[in-house]
Amino acid sequence: MRVEIWSDIACPWCYVGKARFEKGLAEFAHRDGVEVVHRSFELDPGRAKGDTAQVIDVLAQKYGRTREEARAMEANVAGNAHAEGLAYRTEGRDHGSTFDIHRLLHLAKARGRQDELLDLAYRANFAEERSVFDDGVLVELGVEAGLDRDEVLAVLADPGAYADDVRADEREASELGANGVPFFVLDRRYGISGGQPSEVFLKALEQAWKDRAVTALTTIGDDAAACDADGSCEVPQPEASV
Amino acid sequence: MRVEIWSDIACPWCYVGKARFEKGLAEFAHRDGVEVVHRSFELDPGRAKGDTAQVIDVLAQKYGRTREEARAMEANVAGNAHAEGLAYRTEGRDHGSTFDIHRLLHLAKARGRQDELLDLAYRANFAEERSVFDDGVLVELGVEAGLDRDEVLAVLADPGAYADDVRADEREASELGANGVPFFVLDRRYGISGGQPSEVFLKALEQAWKDRAVTALTTIGDDAAACDADGSCEVPQPEASV
Repeated sequence: MRVEIWSDIACPWCYVGKARFEKGLAEFAHRDGVEVVHRSFELDPGRAKGDTAQVIDVLAQKYGRTREEARAMEANVAGNAHAEGLAYRTEGRDHGSTFDIHRLLHLAKARGRQDELLDLAYRANFAEERSVFDDGVLVELGVEAGLDRDEVLAVLADPGAYADDVRADEREASELGANGVPFFVLDRRYGISGGQPSEVFLKALEQAWKDRAVTALTTIGDDAAACDADGSCEVPQPEASV
Repeated sequence: MRVEIWSDIACPWCYVGKARFEKGLAEFAHRDGVEVVHRSFELDPGRAKGDTAQVIDVLAQKYGRTREEARAMEANVAGNAHAEGLAYRTEGRDHGSTFDIHRLLHLAKARGRQDELLDLAYRANFAEERSVFDDGVLVELGVEAGLDRDEVLAVLADPGAYADDVRADEREASELGANGVPFFVLDRRYGISGGQPSEVFLKALEQAWKDRAVTALTTIGDDAAACDADGSCEVPQPEASV
């Protein structure tokens, strides 16, 4: 079974939601049969690289609130994070373009290190004093995740690298009806929006697992040469399909 | 879009079918949006590790044919392979248990090197004088595919490593109605059996691509904290789900 999770590094509910999903997954009997894929979604796609600002200021501006009110919003998220055992700093966090992080997450996916890099990026952004909008930090995170430093540098140096993959993920989120993140899709059959409690994820996994065997495939193509389950690879007559 | 391919290293039509699929994929306009995953299927699951025999002898015994007739069957496959530009040796190939190769292909999947290892294993088995039933050769192939030698050795030394993944793939093939390989599944919607001509794969990809946007997801869970597409992460009232 496959779970796809659309998220953004800059999204606190994605950080909290990932922990809740993983808690639900840990209690799921068939967890070893679940493959998780992370997909890209930018909350602020119009923001240029290098254009960073303090999160508190961005929040205050976006909602027309005082900085104190913005701090209270952050404190609410922090409470939810702490309940999941996650550290969360409410001050000093940067807001900026996450496009390059998403490109690196696609490199990490190709190298089997995506979940590692995502966890490190969340931790850097939400729990540590490290700006994920700084190329030097991104290189460090990539190397910590097990990526090759030169490959990370090459992707950062080429703005086109994995750019289409990021945009394809975002287009797909839109096609699937996601209007926010985190957005969880189970076997392209069930959609779960937001940082739900872990029990909701567990129930969804159980539902999707129960349904997966009943998928009826539509067959394409006539008979063609194959090796049967009994090991037989014989082709009785000259292959019709050649 | 995701394409899953069930196959066995010992299956000549899987070797040929992979090349035909890739030829179809290369002509597909949206090929960059296609993710390919290889899944395990053993043609001879009852065979013990170390119990190897010459393919010609196994074929002759299985079909009650003479070795000359078995050679003619192999020559037929070789002709199909050559038509795809693939080398194929009809003599001296071993038959044996492919369980360990499948376990290594799962390690390679986790490290983003699955396609590389599968190509190398096919080449070793069908085109080169290297027995994929020899642990030393498997270690070489793993390292050539970009895996860490110690990780490959650790998987080979522990018969339980990735064993459940191999069995889960095989169970899933059965649930999806596959009774032979290669078996191609597009977005869990279309099934294609056998080493079809590349045009069949191209048409199937086009059909599956056309259909992918219309998937309607079933929503699970009530409203929960999320960051909206406009960047808003505000939670108006204390989160109901906590």
